Amino acid sequence: MLDFKEISAKDNRIIKLTALLQKSAKARKENSLFVLEGLRICRDAADCGVAFDTLIVSETARKKHANDIENFSKISNNGVLIPDYLFEKISDTETPQGIIALAKIPDITVPVDKSGRYVALEHIADPANLGAIARTAEALGISGIIVSGDGCDIFSPKALRASMGTLLRVPVYSCADITEFLKANSLRGFACVPDANADLKIGETCFLPGDVVIIGNEANGLTENTVKGAYKTVTIPMRGRAESLNAASAASIAMWELLK
Amino acid sequence: MLDFKEISAKDNRIIKLTALLQKSAKARKENSLFVLEGLRICRDAADCGVAFDTLIVSETARKKHANDIENFSKISNNGVLIPDYLFEKISDTETPQGIIALAKIPDITVPVDKSGRYVALEHIADPANLGAIARTAEALGISGIIVSGDGCDIFSPKALRASMGTLLRVPVYSCADITEFLKANSLRGFACVPDANADLKIGETCFLPGDVVIIGNEANGLTENTVKGAYKTVTIPMRGRAESLNAASAASIAMWELLK
Repeated sequence: MLDFKEISAKDNRIIKLTALLQKSAKARKENSLFVLEGLRICRDAADCGVAFDTLIVSETARKKHANDIENFSKISNNGVLIPDYLFEKISDTETPQGIIALAKIPDITVPVDKSGRYVALEHIADPANLGAIARTAEALGISGIIVSGDGCDIFSPKALRASMGTLLRVPVYSCADITEFLKANSLRGFACVPDANADLKIGETCFLPGDVVIIGNEANGLTENTVKGAYKTVTIPMRGRAESLNAASAASIAMWELLK
Repeated sequence: MLDFKEISAKDNRIIKLTALLQKSAKARKENSLFVLEGLRICRDAADCGVAFDTLIVSETARKKHANDIENFSKISNNGVLIPDYLFEKISDTETPQGIIALAKIPDITVPVDKSGRYVALEHIADPANLGAIARTAEALGISGIIVSGDGCDIFSPKALRASMGTLLRVPVYSCADITEFLKANSLRGFACVPDANADLKIGETCFLPGDVVIIGNEANGLTENTVKGAYKTVTIPMRGRAESLNAASAASIAMWELLK
């Protein structure tokens, strides 16, 4: 049974590290750790074989969620018990459940499948969009998600929450340049653009194994480099006065057509 | 030219009313006013013929956005000039642009089109989802949006922002009960459910004029009453471990199939 160390000092190393990992993608990378907060996502992560470095529980949660905490204890290296008021300080949610795991960032072990179907996200900035896209991607049966390294961090608490844990299950490949990544893996990229003059309309496009739909940044769309490097440009035909779709909505429709 | 009244007291009636209208759907309804914050949405609203009751500008904005403010002045009944620090107090954004219009809630004048194609939202709670759905709805050419009265307010600042102003342009019909509304308007409802045993799969459904896709609440889905009252249930086939889609993603795919 895991031995829970009691901590009540707010300048304790673990407390400060947790607060930092909640906020900073850089800190997550440097420590190779990320934060799982709440029962559901901890359960999902445990089911996926994610290893817990440290399990942090509040005094109230220890009594209320004894069974789950016992299960999580078995896959955790360290246990920490803290007062409720201190938990609130390190929580990223408005109504904390009192359970946080500092988990090890997993290595991707699934190789890219040349006959898979992927979605690529260039500079997606909003973690809520990234999470929603991952959720749709898994539901529709995508082979994986390719993200440009300068987009929002897939291990951000907001993205993980919005993804309902799917970001821990769908293979995610991070790359510096989407065009180069697709070339290196012999995949065909379809750049989604809000442009009536695109090469193809998405409802009329015949996608094949090895095809990838590429979605751009919320404010600026795709970079010129990625549009030029793509196999084809493709558009979701729009009427009315709308200039573009929300990135997650565009990704949903594009993945739906890619995978159906 | 509109005469701008200078206000600096934070307990001024207009200041207090604005703060209230930002937060409270009830206050918006009672006053028949809502808040437009920022240049872009004020321009969009002006283009749609929305009437401004009061135009509130910060001292910095008055200099910086003189042309826009002159245009907005022409359609405003009252003008108010306030110090920047006071503007920050009534702003709903992190980086305020210094322009707010208290606008009159417009009457819907577009009658329901029995051969139109609609999306109905039952108890959608997240204004970001409502806004994203409206944006997609307009882009794809929906005839209008039907919302159950207990969902989030279409005039909430977050919903308006997420919709990029489309909530001011697409006809929105509020109703107590979706089934009753569809019946009264001779429309056929397709209840979108995350259930492999639904009557229809959405990619194989032949939609006709007068059809409506119905999307449920983020946490609880559709009510039993609405599912039973619908013409058919329809599902977006899902693989993997996902239990459901984000409401805006599901609505995007459903509207795409309804309208293509």
